[in-house]
Amino acid sequence: MIACACVLLFSSCAGKQEDSSVLWKSKAAGVWTVKAGVPDELNLTSQLRVKPKWNSINAMGEASLPIEKEEIKFEFIDGKTYLRFPLAKGEKIYGLGLNFKTVEQRGRIMRLHVDHYGGRDNGRTHAPVPFFVSSRGYGAFINSARYLDVYVGTAVRVDSKVPANDTDRNTDRAWSAQPYSDQLDILIPTTGVDLVLFAGKNMLDVVRRFNLYNGGGVLPPKWGLGFWQRTPTLYSDKDVLNEVAEFKKRGFPLSVIGLEPGWMSRSYPCTYEWDKSRFPNPEKLVQTLNSEHVKTNLWMNEGVSPRSELASKLKPLSCSHTLWNGLIPDYTLPEVVDLVKGLMLKEHLSIGVSGYKMDENDGFDSWIFPDVATFPSGHSAEQMRQIYGSLMQQFTTKMYRDQNKRTYGLVRSSNGGASSFPYVIYNDYYKHRDFITALINSSFIGVLWTPEVRASNSSEEWLRRMQTVCFSPLAMLNAWADGTKPWTFKDVANDVNQIALLRMQLIPYLYTAFAAYTFQGVPPMRAMNLEPAFTAETSTQQSGALDGTKNPYALATKREMKDQFMVGQDLLVAPLFAGEKERQVILPQGKWYDFYTGDYVGEGEVITATPGLSKIPVYVRNGGIVPLLPKLITLDGSQQPLEIRHYGTKAGSFKLYDDDGESYDYEKGQYMYLDIQVDVDEAGHKKGSVILPDNQKSWSYNGVYTFHYMTK
Amino acid sequence: MIACACVLLFSSCAGKQEDSSVLWKSKAAGVWTVKAGVPDELNLTSQLRVKPKWNSINAMGEASLPIEKEEIKFEFIDGKTYLRFPLAKGEKIYGLGLNFKTVEQRGRIMRLHVDHYGGRDNGRTHAPVPFFVSSRGYGAFINSARYLDVYVGTAVRVDSKVPANDTDRNTDRAWSAQPYSDQLDILIPTTGVDLVLFAGKNMLDVVRRFNLYNGGGVLPPKWGLGFWQRTPTLYSDKDVLNEVAEFKKRGFPLSVIGLEPGWMSRSYPCTYEWDKSRFPNPEKLVQTLNSEHVKTNLWMNEGVSPRSELASKLKPLSCSHTLWNGLIPDYTLPEVVDLVKGLMLKEHLSIGVSGYKMDENDGFDSWIFPDVATFPSGHSAEQMRQIYGSLMQQFTTKMYRDQNKRTYGLVRSSNGGASSFPYVIYNDYYKHRDFITALINSSFIGVLWTPEVRASNSSEEWLRRMQTVCFSPLAMLNAWADGTKPWTFKDVANDVNQIALLRMQLIPYLYTAFAAYTFQGVPPMRAMNLEPAFTAETSTQQSGALDGTKNPYALATKREMKDQFMVGQDLLVAPLFAGEKERQVILPQGKWYDFYTGDYVGEGEVITATPGLSKIPVYVRNGGIVPLLPKLITLDGSQQPLEIRHYGTKAGSFKLYDDDGESYDYEKGQYMYLDIQVDVDEAGHKKGSVILPDNQKSWSYNGVYTFHYMTK
Repeated sequence: MIACACVLLFSSCAGKQEDSSVLWKSKAAGVWTVKAGVPDELNLTSQLRVKPKWNSINAMGEASLPIEKEEIKFEFIDGKTYLRFPLAKGEKIYGLGLNFKTVEQRGRIMRLHVDHYGGRDNGRTHAPVPFFVSSRGYGAFINSARYLDVYVGTAVRVDSKVPANDTDRNTDRAWSAQPYSDQLDILIPTTGVDLVLFAGKNMLDVVRRFNLYNGGGVLPPKWGLGFWQRTPTLYSDKDVLNEVAEFKKRGFPLSVIGLEPGWMSRSYPCTYEWDKSRFPNPEKLVQTLNSEHVKTNLWMNEGVSPRSELASKLKPLSCSHTLWNGLIPDYTLPEVVDLVKGLMLKEHLSIGVSGYKMDENDGFDSWIFPDVATFPSGHSAEQMRQIYGSLMQQFTTKMYRDQNKRTYGLVRSSNGGASSFPYVIYNDYYKHRDFITALINSSFIGVLWTPEVRASNSSEEWLRRMQTVCFSPLAMLNAWADGTKPWTFKDVANDVNQIALLRMQLIPYLYTAFAAYTFQGVPPMRAMNLEPAFTAETSTQQSGALDGTKNPYALATKREMKDQFMVGQDLLVAPLFAGEKERQVILPQGKWYDFYTGDYVGEGEVITATPGLSKIPVYVRNGGIVPLLPKLITLDGSQQPLEIRHYGTKAGSFKLYDDDGESYDYEKGQYMYLDIQVDVDEAGHKKGSVILPDNQKSWSYNGVYTFHYMTK
Repeated sequence: MIACACVLLFSSCAGKQEDSSVLWKSKAAGVWTVKAGVPDELNLTSQLRVKPKWNSINAMGEASLPIEKEEIKFEFIDGKTYLRFPLAKGEKIYGLGLNFKTVEQRGRIMRLHVDHYGGRDNGRTHAPVPFFVSSRGYGAFINSARYLDVYVGTAVRVDSKVPANDTDRNTDRAWSAQPYSDQLDILIPTTGVDLVLFAGKNMLDVVRRFNLYNGGGVLPPKWGLGFWQRTPTLYSDKDVLNEVAEFKKRGFPLSVIGLEPGWMSRSYPCTYEWDKSRFPNPEKLVQTLNSEHVKTNLWMNEGVSPRSELASKLKPLSCSHTLWNGLIPDYTLPEVVDLVKGLMLKEHLSIGVSGYKMDENDGFDSWIFPDVATFPSGHSAEQMRQIYGSLMQQFTTKMYRDQNKRTYGLVRSSNGGASSFPYVIYNDYYKHRDFITALINSSFIGVLWTPEVRASNSSEEWLRRMQTVCFSPLAMLNAWADGTKPWTFKDVANDVNQIALLRMQLIPYLYTAFAAYTFQGVPPMRAMNLEPAFTAETSTQQSGALDGTKNPYALATKREMKDQFMVGQDLLVAPLFAGEKERQVILPQGKWYDFYTGDYVGEGEVITATPGLSKIPVYVRNGGIVPLLPKLITLDGSQQPLEIRHYGTKAGSFKLYDDDGESYDYEKGQYMYLDIQVDVDEAGHKKGSVILPDNQKSWSYNGVYTFHYMTK
């Protein structure tokens, strides 16, 4: 009865309220926070204990917002918060979650909701991060763990500043079903909101500030950037060792072996304990693998088996609902974290397991708790759904950090605030082209994504998928269901091997790109739209023809930049998909060169790539430098020589990041940059050099540097 | 600041509350209302002024709920209401909105939200009616104008009465991704809810009570059951008259001609005024058409043109947002209704227009107001979205009712409570098979649906679509975009003509079915699952095979009864779709006969129909009687003879409903039933008779009755 009385009181004053309760604060150079109304205590970041990298943000220098803060409107209506941003003519909006089909979000409507991606960019996705970046040079992070309804320039107000075109569909060809809208509306279904605004001289700077605000991006352990293979779910320890031996025998790289549910005594729901019939001596297995420089990654999900030793203790600390009859622990409770961590330490970390693949925390609606579930902490199911993946990332990361070890693993859901957690998102959707669009979109929102390879309909598709996964944050074959091997498609087995070896060679370059993610917030794989030199008009509208059954509103279609991307400082990757013999590539300003041959290919223009099946088109910026390892099949920790490639006609420099590759000592300054320079004299002669900081030794390189000047 | 204070107060007591505030009332035989918590004042029916037909409900006799009311659980958490119903083993759940692909809802998750149907049964549809009917013999209407999250037996609670199967996916073949769930959960995102519960001896009785609670179903004017044609949007009055003449010349039935947006001076947004260049004398046109017994129906939508004479008055009474730059009137305000009604009376009703096609009030998310819109009445956009179509139906119906005229028209959105409004739902989705599933689903939720015909890829598809629309609530060709005529596909033109003529012949039978909808709440077109004699097991599960990319959870597939349906008392219709030469038909208990030949086809069994292209399979129950008109092309109001067909070997009776066909005088008792009887003596000889009530004359029939005993 108490609740009802309150509700009445609340209803009685639920009329429209203006934004008298909006509090702005300047937090760092180009970062402002806004508290409006009465926000929830639990938001996307409140449980994550992540510290913004204020110093790194301030080091970027001042930046101002391109809009007046008064242009951002807040209303409090019906117990909800209505938030409105202005949109200018030609302004483009990126971000707003891990979308798979679209990159530019203006004109779209979404409900940001953690879920398995279901084939439509409607907001239901593995990382529905409520952050957008505008082409005008600012971004906003709506730090709410609610399901947010977002209308990106779709609705037109009666009092819009841009007067509506008064057209008549009957006779006026200018009539459009999508009239111009000058606002981005967000509905936050609670009584207030925490907002963070970021400015920047370009979109990349805005994204960098967002990432640094979230603690900076991930720096994976170096082994995480090698090649991963997951084994069939019922493999035994012997099968696993045979698999590793087979990789070695075939000269195929392998850094991590992933064990699927069958490593557990029971799973779906989980015991988190080893199955002693398939794995009689897990410690010996993991140590054997470690001695061969192959790390062990374990599948798990959040559902705890009623037969687990934890079950009786977790029962009162878990959700009202189950996941496949397993308890769903309330990870906002410290005692829950302690219980699960205790078991993980004993069963996994103490014997040398390197990390986890955390499945199903996206929910897939049908599996996870419904929104009517309750949690002992009192947090709503809606909020728990939005942060569940982040909570799992947080406590497992901390568990490794407490041992001064970096982990790197996989997760099915993430959200705003989780940028610094060493997890890469994956899913079951499996459309190759859309996987690449997701890779591109991940760079706007501070998450990592892998277009993992499972199976293919043809050797062509197999190779094309392998080519892209080797330019992603996590190069993995996930063969849990049918046990596919990299060499299964015989006619492309050698090509697959070559691209996997190239992945290994690229580790110094990629590791440096991840260091820039950590220290400067620069995403290692990036949308072309985040490349400052990329000035091409990336979207075109084509007007649609009226069709009474297929297009009754004569909707226009849009072409976007969603199939090529940047990797690290200077590489542009333009994948081909099965069935394609050629593709168009849009080059940013400046001269560009073929990665494989060093040949000049073009400059700020559209070129056609016809690389043949064995190659994925990769281009290098003029003056670009790419340091390469030898073709290793494992990273054994020994110091290696470097092949250093220089492209184009300009002088270049590359600061090669180096540290111990596996601990957090880099956070205490235990890292260095090798300064690679290539000078070009007036006659065009090139001369390379590598300079190490005074009195420092490299962790990873033995001092043998071979320069290749690729462009003749 | 006041709002904030309230919010704080509200938050401070937002903990879990038990259902101490649940108030049950017995309203009529087999009908209970429940008020729980503090429901919104505005719900689905509060604005519709519909009176339940309590007398008709009580006439059905007592019925008790198969569950204890204590089994229905209410919780009030986070400002929301969590509602839970028990589910028994084998219990099936139907209803929950106008779904297009599924009939049985157990195992599914939906968010009931008025919208254009987007190809998935996720709750977004034209009539997301929050009513379900259970195979145990009860139903519940959740009378809330909020977006409701519904989990129909998907979630499993830790404290479930049915213990969870403790299976292990690793090794146990019984593992299922969808464990058994014994509850139906509904999240109502506000502080309380109004519930109505209905009991019944079978599902049909439950649905009847629901329909009668909503004022009884629609009784269309008789002309509404004829054949409709819509003309291309830019047709002039002359084009329209030519079209009508062409129908007559070709002997093709025509009862209603529908004019599309171009009849208006401006449309999208609308002026609601005639375009004087295409229609210089609309009064003369409409009267000419009326004199030829062809009614005029006008397209419209809710967006009011800034150039309309109403615009300045409506502006302060409209939504904060526009629909294609048109004002969206707040139809909860009486002055708004008066303004629009004034214009409609002057421009349309006074000259004899018969009704409307009310487009786009489903929203199609991108077009209509976003959920951050505000209305001068203070109602939230969410609530307005849920009831907007119902509001338009309500006031236009009343406008005609005030003139003692029935109207019949089309609408894009509806919801619970609108069963008595004479509108049929249509959309742009256009998948023929799914259109039939929608027709079946409409019968569970008190709405009407037409699988209208627009265009086709082949003459086969054209004919198959025409066959089904002629067994629907509204037989219409909608040729607004490309001007297709019924005879456009020449090779099937005669077959199309014959099925349209059969539609005209069936009007007495169909009109009687609609009378049963009005007076007894029996849907005229019905799911097989609502047929008491239909005892077949209608759904089967097939276990799914594991596939790492296509079916990673090895989901089972389900077969449901979603492609055959009942029409009126005794007809079973089993459509074929383009590409099919034969189909299986599941017959209810009792003997069944072919409609066209009278031949016996089977009894409570599965038969294979091979009707050829020109026929749609139709079957008649043993003893079934079908009265038929001559093959008319218009209904001119003159009295007609009847051909009366009898099927099978049993005696039969049919109460043929009759009234003036166009006024509301039937509500004052101005109607009658003709008592048609066929007796069968011991030798199998049949003898038919038609008995009129004492001292009454039929409105429609001239007393010439010809009996055909179809089964030899």
